[in-house]
Amino acid sequence: MSADVVPLRPRAEPSLSPMLALTAQGMNSVNAVILDRMQSEVPLIPALAGHLISGGGKRLRPMLTVAGAELCGYQGTRHHKLAAAVEFIHTATLLHDDVVDGSDLRRGKAAANIVFGNPATVLVGDFLFTRAFELMVEDGSLKVLKILSGASSIIAEGEVDQLVAQRHVDTSEERYLSIIGSKTAALFAAATRIAAVVAEKSEAEERALDAYGRNLGIAFQLVDDAIDYDSEAEESGKGKGDDFREGKMTLPVILAYARGSAEERKFWQEAIAGFLTEDEDLAHAVKLINRHGCVDATRERARYYAQRAIDAIAVFPPSAARDAMAEAALFAVARRY
Amino acid sequence: MSADVVPLRPRAEPSLSPMLALTAQGMNSVNAVILDRMQSEVPLIPALAGHLISGGGKRLRPMLTVAGAELCGYQGTRHHKLAAAVEFIHTATLLHDDVVDGSDLRRGKAAANIVFGNPATVLVGDFLFTRAFELMVEDGSLKVLKILSGASSIIAEGEVDQLVAQRHVDTSEERYLSIIGSKTAALFAAATRIAAVVAEKSEAEERALDAYGRNLGIAFQLVDDAIDYDSEAEESGKGKGDDFREGKMTLPVILAYARGSAEERKFWQEAIAGFLTEDEDLAHAVKLINRHGCVDATRERARYYAQRAIDAIAVFPPSAARDAMAEAALFAVARRY
Repeated sequence: MSADVVPLRPRAEPSLSPMLALTAQGMNSVNAVILDRMQSEVPLIPALAGHLISGGGKRLRPMLTVAGAELCGYQGTRHHKLAAAVEFIHTATLLHDDVVDGSDLRRGKAAANIVFGNPATVLVGDFLFTRAFELMVEDGSLKVLKILSGASSIIAEGEVDQLVAQRHVDTSEERYLSIIGSKTAALFAAATRIAAVVAEKSEAEERALDAYGRNLGIAFQLVDDAIDYDSEAEESGKGKGDDFREGKMTLPVILAYARGSAEERKFWQEAIAGFLTEDEDLAHAVKLINRHGCVDATRERARYYAQRAIDAIAVFPPSAARDAMAEAALFAVARRY
Repeated sequence: MSADVVPLRPRAEPSLSPMLALTAQGMNSVNAVILDRMQSEVPLIPALAGHLISGGGKRLRPMLTVAGAELCGYQGTRHHKLAAAVEFIHTATLLHDDVVDGSDLRRGKAAANIVFGNPATVLVGDFLFTRAFELMVEDGSLKVLKILSGASSIIAEGEVDQLVAQRHVDTSEERYLSIIGSKTAALFAAATRIAAVVAEKSEAEERALDAYGRNLGIAFQLVDDAIDYDSEAEESGKGKGDDFREGKMTLPVILAYARGSAEERKFWQEAIAGFLTEDEDLAHAVKLINRHGCVDATRERARYYAQRAIDAIAVFPPSAARDAMAEAALFAVARRY
C-alpha cells in the first residue's frame, strides 16, 4: 500500500528572475567595464579573454556585488569597476583551472587552453588578474583592496590544496569544505562584502553581506559538485564526469565512499586513483552515488548553507533586493544545470 | 706589423660588490619578509616556492628597491615589505614562464615545473602574486599600489606579446625592445621608483629612479639574451641554447638575421620555426652570430642603456649609494654569467 504525497501549499520553483531584474541595469554598466578593460594592444589578449568572457558565463559574482549595492541602497557607481574586477579575478582562475585540469570543455564550448594552448592561457589569466588589481587601485579604497587581495590569496591557497587532495580517496568532508570555502566561497564573500564597503554601511552589515556571500558560495559549489553526478541534471557547461575522471574528491564521492560496502570502496579507490576512466566506470559511479542518496544528501547540505545565507541578510530591512537575494539562494540549491 | 695596444689607464672590471655591500643589511630584512610570507598551511606552497626562492636567485629586483632607498637617504623600513612584494611578483612570473616555455632548468637546477608539475607551478605562481598584493595593501600606499599593479599588468602583456612573437623570424628590433621593456624593464623601473615614493622624494627624483631601473632592466635583458649565444660566457642558470630551441627572437638572432647572407637567413628561418634543434644546429647558430659580431653588438646596445641609467641618477648628490648603483649598471653590461 502506498499513499500519494499531496503538498499542502503548491509552491513555485525558486527563480533567478528577480535577481536578474534587480541587477539588470547595474550589470549593463559592469559589462561595459569588462569589455573595455579586457582590451590590449596585444590582440591575442582580448581574443583569448573574450573567448571565455563572452562565452555565456552567468557573471554571478559581479551580479552579487551589484545586488549587494542595491540591498544597501547605494546610489553611486563605484561598484561597477569593482564588480568587473571580481569577474576578472574569477575569469583568471577559470583560465588557470583549465590549464591545471587539462579541461576540454568550459561553459559548453572548447576550453581556452584547447583553442589557444596552455602558454597563452596561463599568461592571459595573469593579465586579467593584474587588470583586476588595476581596477581596484583606480577605485582607491584600501579596505576594498584588502578584502579582494586577501580573498585572491585564499583562492590560490584553496586551488593548491584541492590539487594536493586530488586522487586521495581518504579526503574528509571537513577538508572538502575547507577547500571549497577557499576556492569558491571566499570570492563570493568578498564580492558581496565590498558592496557594503562602498555603501559605507556598518561593520555588522558588512559582516552580514560577507556571510551571505560565503554561505551562498558553499551552497553553489556543493550543487555544482552534485550536478556532475546527477542523472537528472542537464548537461552542465563542463564535460559530464570531469570531476570523476580527474579524481576530484567532491562531497557526493566522499559520501558514497563513506556509505559504501567494502567492494564499493575498492571501486572508489581504483577510480579516484585514475585506473577507471571509461564511460561505464562513470555510469557505475553515478549508480553507487545514487544508491546511497549522495546527490540528494549533497543538495541537503547546500540547502543548509543557503538558509544561513538568507538568514544572514535579515539584518537589512525588507526590500525587493533582499527578497531577490533570498530567492537566488534557494535557486542556487534547486538548479539542475 | 702589429702594435700592442697599451691601455692608458688600467681599469678594474666593474663589480657588483659595492651594491651588495650597500644593500646587505636591508636585504637581510627583505629576506626575512620573503621567507615569512611565502608560508602557508598548505605545505606544497612553501615547498614549491622555496625551491625557486631559496634556489640561488640574485634577488636583483628587491636589491634595487633597497639601493634606491639608500640613495634617497630613507631611514624607515616600509621598503622591506615592498621589496619582498617585488620579488614575489618576479618569482610568480618565473614560475609561469617555466610552464609556458616547458623549461628544464632554472638557476642551474631542475625547474619547478619539472619537479612539481605544471599544475602546482601555475597555482603557486598565482599564490605568490596574490601575496605580493597583500604585502602592498598592508603598506597602504595607493601610489605604490598603482605603480606595481601597473607594472604587473605591463609584464603580463609583454609576456603574451613575447609568446606571439616566438618563432617569427621577422620580429624587428623595435618589437623586441618593446617586449623586453614590458616583460623585464617595467618591474626594474617600478622596483626603483617605489623607493623614491616611500622616501617622499620629488616627482623628478621619482622619475629619475624610474629611468635608472628601466634602462638598467633593458641592459640586463640584452646581456641575458647575449649570454645565451656567447661562447665565452659561463654556463648560465638556464639551459644553454634554450632561447634558440624555443624560437625566441632575441637581439643576437635579430641582428644575425639582418646581417646574414641569403643562405644564413634560410638557416634562421628553419631554426626559429623549430626544425633545427640539435646541438650542431645551436653550434652553427653561435658561429653565425659571432661571425657578424652580434653578441658584441648586443652588449654595445646594453652599454648605451646602462649609460642612460647612470646619467639618470645624476640628479641625486654624489654618494656611495650613487656610485654603487652606477657601477652595478656597468657590471650588468660586463657580466658573463
